[in-house]
Order: sequence, then C-alpha cells, then structure tokens
Amino acid sequence: MKLNTNYSNVSDSYLFSTIAKKVAAYQAANPGKKVLRLGIGDVTLPLAPAVISAMHAAVDEMASAATFRGYGPEQGYGFLKDAIAAYYLERGVKLDSEEIFISDGAKSDLGNILDIFSQDNTVLIPDPVYPVYVDTNVMAGRKIVYMNATAENGFLPMPDYSVDADIIYLCSPNNPTGAAYTVAQLEEWVKYALEKDAVILYDAAYECFIEGNSAARSIYLVKGAEKCAIEFCSFSKMAGFTGTRCGWTVVPAQLVSGGLSAHKMWLRRQTTKFNGVPYIVQRGAAAVFTPEGRAQTAENLNYYKQNAKIIAEGLKQLGITFFGGESSPYIWMQCPHGMTSWQFFDYLLENAQVVGTPGAGFGVNGEGFFRLTAFGSRQTTQEAVERIKALLGK
Amino acid sequence: MKLNTNYSNVSDSYLFSTIAKKVAAYQAANPGKKVLRLGIGDVTLPLAPAVISAMHAAVDEMASAATFRGYGPEQGYGFLKDAIAAYYLERGVKLDSEEIFISDGAKSDLGNILDIFSQDNTVLIPDPVYPVYVDTNVMAGRKIVYMNATAENGFLPMPDYSVDADIIYLCSPNNPTGAAYTVAQLEEWVKYALEKDAVILYDAAYECFIEGNSAARSIYLVKGAEKCAIEFCSFSKMAGFTGTRCGWTVVPAQLVSGGLSAHKMWLRRQTTKFNGVPYIVQRGAAAVFTPEGRAQTAENLNYYKQNAKIIAEGLKQLGITFFGGESSPYIWMQCPHGMTSWQFFDYLLENAQVVGTPGAGFGVNGEGFFRLTAFGSRQTTQEAVERIKALLGK
Repeated sequence: MKLNTNYSNVSDSYLFSTIAKKVAAYQAANPGKKVLRLGIGDVTLPLAPAVISAMHAAVDEMASAATFRGYGPEQGYGFLKDAIAAYYLERGVKLDSEEIFISDGAKSDLGNILDIFSQDNTVLIPDPVYPVYVDTNVMAGRKIVYMNATAENGFLPMPDYSVDADIIYLCSPNNPTGAAYTVAQLEEWVKYALEKDAVILYDAAYECFIEGNSAARSIYLVKGAEKCAIEFCSFSKMAGFTGTRCGWTVVPAQLVSGGLSAHKMWLRRQTTKFNGVPYIVQRGAAAVFTPEGRAQTAENLNYYKQNAKIIAEGLKQLGITFFGGESSPYIWMQCPHGMTSWQFFDYLLENAQVVGTPGAGFGVNGEGFFRLTAFGSRQTTQEAVERIKALLGK
Repeated sequence: MKLNTNYSNVSDSYLFSTIAKKVAAYQAANPGKKVLRLGIGDVTLPLAPAVISAMHAAVDEMASAATFRGYGPEQGYGFLKDAIAAYYLERGVKLDSEEIFISDGAKSDLGNILDIFSQDNTVLIPDPVYPVYVDTNVMAGRKIVYMNATAENGFLPMPDYSVDADIIYLCSPNNPTGAAYTVAQLEEWVKYALEKDAVILYDAAYECFIEGNSAARSIYLVKGAEKCAIEFCSFSKMAGFTGTRCGWTVVPAQLVSGGLSAHKMWLRRQTTKFNGVPYIVQRGAAAVFTPEGRAQTAENLNYYKQNAKIIAEGLKQLGITFFGGESSPYIWMQCPHGMTSWQFFDYLLENAQVVGTPGAGFGVNGEGFFRLTAFGSRQTTQEAVERIKALLGK
C-alpha cells in the first residue's frame, strides 16, 4: 500500500493544545486564581425549546414501526431543504431546494467538496485563516497561494488580477478576524472569479451574526455568483448545533466548468460517500425555522451579540484598535504596547487571568493580534472585560 | 477551476431506479395485484426501547446549560468507544479504545478512508460487489483489479499470489451474496496482505447476523490483521440505525507502511474533515450495549434471521441452489431454468408479484443470480415464499 505522503506536509497545529498547557501550568502554580476563558469558539447556551420538542417527537417516531424512518435521501429531507430555501428567499435569494444539500456541518463539507476538484488547481487562501482550508488542500497536494488580510485592508483582501487562482476561499463574517464583506465587495470577487473561471468556496457559518444590511448574508446576493460560488452554512452558531451536527451546502445548478456540472458531481459524491444526516437531527434543524424556533434562536444570538458589544465597548474605552465585535462573535484586537500575540497571551493570563487566542496561531498576518470570542456567559464576559480594562487602563 | 474528470468514468447505476420503474409500470397495468417486496436492504423494525430512552435523555441534556454538549471529540466519545471495545473483547479481540473511531456509518468511512492512501495504489475488488467500493476508487482515478466470486468458490474468492494489489476489499457476511469467510479463510487473506504490503478494508457491517462460530465476526480474530487491516462496522443492521446514522472504524495503531502510521493519518483526517457524530446519536448507540439494549436488539435481529430461514427453507424445498440465508440477511439464489437475472426478475414480478434484486446489477458474476432480503415483515416474507413455491414448484 502507498499511504498519502501529502499528509507529512500538514503542519501539526499546537495552537489550542499549547494554550491548554499554558493555562493548566498557570492554574497549578496559582490554585487560588480564577481564570476566565474568552478563547473558546464553542457555544454555551442550550438548544432552543422548539428544537428540543421537535427532536423528542422525532425520537418517538423512531420507536414505532408505523412512523420509523430508515435510510433517508443522502442530500437531506425535503422538509428541511424547503425551510432553508425559504430562509434564503427572505433575504432576497431564490434557490431551488435541489441546490441545497444537508450536511453534518460546514467543516465536513468544506473538506469533502474538494473531492470534486482535481488535484491540479491553485488555491487562494487569506492569511490569517481558519486552518481547515489550508490543511485539507495540503492533504490533497494542491498548490496554495496566500492573500494578505491586514489592518490596512480591514482584514478583507480584495482581488488581485495579477494572481491566478482556481479555488478561492472566503469566510465572512470571518473567523478569526470578525471582518465581513459587503455585497459591493463580493461583487468584485464574483467578477474576478468569473473572469478567471475560478470557484469561490464561501463559508457563511457566521452570517446569523450580521446586523441589518451592514454586510452580505449570502454570496448569492451578487448576480453571477450562481455561476461561480458554493456556499457553506451551519446550524452550529445559528442555533447551538456544535454537538448536534447539521449544516447545509449550496451547489448551484448553473455552476459548470469544462462541460462538467459541479452540482451533479456533488450529488454523485454525496450519494456515494455519505448517507445523510440523522432524521432526528434534521427534524431539530427544521424547527429552527418555525416562528417559535426563530424567536428562541434569535434570543440566544442576541445574548452572544450583546457579549460582543460588551467586549467591543471595553476596548473602545481603552482606545484599542480592533476588528469585528459587530456582525460577528469574534473580536480581533491589536495587542497593546507592541506586544506579539504570545507575549500578550502570557501578559493577560498572568496579570488578569483572562484567556484568549493568539492571532499568530491563525497565520503570519495574525502576529500582533489577539482573538476574543462572545460565546462565554454574560458574567464571564463582563468580568473579563473589567479585568482587561483595569490592566490596560493603567 | 478544474473539476475532477475521474467522475466522468463513474458508471451511472440504474439498478434500483430501473427496478422501481418496472414495478411502477406493472402496478399501473395491474392495479388489483398486490406486489410483495423482498428487494430492500433497509431495516423495517423500530429502534429498541433502550435506545429510544437513551436518546430522549440525551435530548433533555441538550435543553439545559448545565448538561448541554457542544463540540465533542471528532473520533467519538469515550463512553461509546469503550462499549465497542468491550463488545470486541467478548469475541476475543483486544483493541485499545483509541483504535476505534466513531463514524456516521460504514458507507461514509469506506469512502473517506481512501483519503489517506495515494492515488497510485492498485485496488482488488470482488465481483459481484457493493458498488460503493468501485465508485469511490473510480472517482479517485485508481486502477481496479477484480477477483471472481462465483458458485465454484462459494462466492468467497481466495488470494491469488500472481495478482499484485495494494488495497483489498472484503465484505463478510457479503452483500449481495450472503457468503461469509471463516477465520481460517481470513488467515489466508492476512498472509497474502502482509506478503504484498497491502491493506485489507474489511466491511463487517453484517457481522451481527453470524450464528455461533460458523464465520469470523472480526478480521482481528486473525493474528497479524492488526498490521494490515482496517475494519468497518455499523449500527445500521445491528440496531436499526439506517436513518439514525452511527458506525465505527478500527484503524489499528500497528498499521504502518513506509514509515507512516495509518492510525495517525486517519486521526488527522477526521479531526480536519469531520466534527463527530451527534451526541444524542452516540448516547443511543451506547444504549445498544446495555443488557436491555442487547436483549432488545437481539430480538429484532432474530426476527430478521427467522425471515432469512423461511426464505432459505422455501428454496431448499424447491431444490434451488442458493448462498447466504444463514449468518446473513441476504439470500443469493440461482435463477431457475437458466434464466438471466433480469428475465427472472420479470418472470417473478409478472407471475408471483414478488420483487427482488437482479444479481447482474452487482457485477458480471452476478448474472444468473437473484438477491432476496430478510428485512421485510414476517407476513410479507411468508406470503412471498408461498408465492415463489407455488410458481416454481409447478
């Protein structure tokens, strides 16, 4: 057998394990100190009552031969695809339900979508970045080109026509920087992709945090995107599904290149290598779109959004430059006093007992930045911000 | 962008859609006739009460902040991996829990495992076969060599040292033929794989149907398999999870080639491209291994096993040659009077209103055979067998 040697080129990420070790060592040396974590990217609020009720009902259906569900359609049940299509229509995007594929989360499909592309594609990835975009392509041996996301461009790099690319990753609102593209900015990207015959893999996992029309809630708000973009979205942040696992991927019928239909290929990939999301989970996800589900999940989102505002307000008072904090659960702050990301990590842990994530862990351009998240409890968030203010306001 | 042109080489499978069309046409022409289906590969009995209770309890955990579960370990929760390790130990197989990866089903992992192998591997696949083995390798552009499974070798092909192979697929008990390897036969395969530095991808999805020690319930009953085999198993048939989605994959720590650890690579693959099986589903799966869960799922399995015996007994009375029917939910019968698979399909539909699956749909060597399944209701199974006996016993 020949194992895939490209795996040897994937860099081991020690970011979160290094953080865990540093925090554990600090706690062991300072048992009396209370450490507050604003580094996690996982939700903390429970599932909405409408989702819980729907899943209980679905479990009961599985208990009786008359209502039992065996194999479902690999691409998802119609009841969920239709609800998602209606959610898009509210935002002015008209999709055919058949263009929506139910997934077990954006992470899986962001990796698996690469199956339908040949190895011989040049990939354009922003730096800093969610590491999965890079790792999945390194595993497949593809050539990667980076584009700089920096304070100068608001962490929103725009197309450079001197660079040729086949597969372009955009994440908006962005993890880790919190920056979000407007429709006008995405129009530039769609124009570039169409000219280069490139595909945009658009990660919209955080779209639910966008306030009003401050940023684009779908790339399909741009005309032409249906010919060059695949959009990934998730119930993880929208409805707290990080441990319940459901998302969706839109592969438009019009996405065609070299006479091949990406839509038909993805359908073939999923029917061959996937067996669908659990019926119980799909029922839970569909309940997110009921009136009660919408109201309840909005309440949870508002809780996180309020946390983000509290952090942003604290940093504003300190005069610290930051990105995100609005239309995003992430706050991407400049490290004070010219500290590097890891210097600031240590400084904050030792002097305020607050844990965040060093920006350098997300790429070269993350150096000098630091990520805080809005997913903690209100109390933790408020206390952490007070401590940061006390420390840095001196 | 360059789409993966290997997808153009995947043959469209019209097997089940052709069957559906033929049955629909017959029903339309003969509205008064009652058609009985023994062609389905999906379970029909509801989930066991122990599984239902465990899933209700898990849904309730997700409703409260104190017990809510966010992201879990990608490779599965310890409580489920430990229960599976104990299940193996009962059968005399000692595994480390870390060698067990919880999956959303055998089909997903049988496809995804190919990520850790380079394109440049020769794949050895039996014919007839579960089409997923072929299609996933065609999509990746690998060279496929077939081995003949025929009545002469009891549909259990053995190693041919004149054939070089890197990746070997074995499915036992087999879909579609119902044939199952003994430990002694698997010893031959492990010997061959070790000599050729090949890996065996061992699909054990139907192991729960094996009666006593008539066949091997795991390839790890063979010494040396831990150095050359990956085993895939599933709760789908064992506990009716076809629509609930859970399985597992064993990648032994000792499976190493060219200095690379397949175990570490699969862990990396899963942590990068997968986010774990829903917590609720993992709790349901763990309940299968409780004393009540074991008793209840055994009862369901016995129901299907009894169906298989009823079909097998009917064919015996007719003097028809068949494989499986014992230690398997599949009965692979020789078509009577020298009919081809499709001729017999039409003959049975028109004269007995019984639907099965033409063996030719699974490969060249399936021609002249016909697959019946034990997953129907008792009444359907009995009535179908009576009709077959009445038709063919003339």
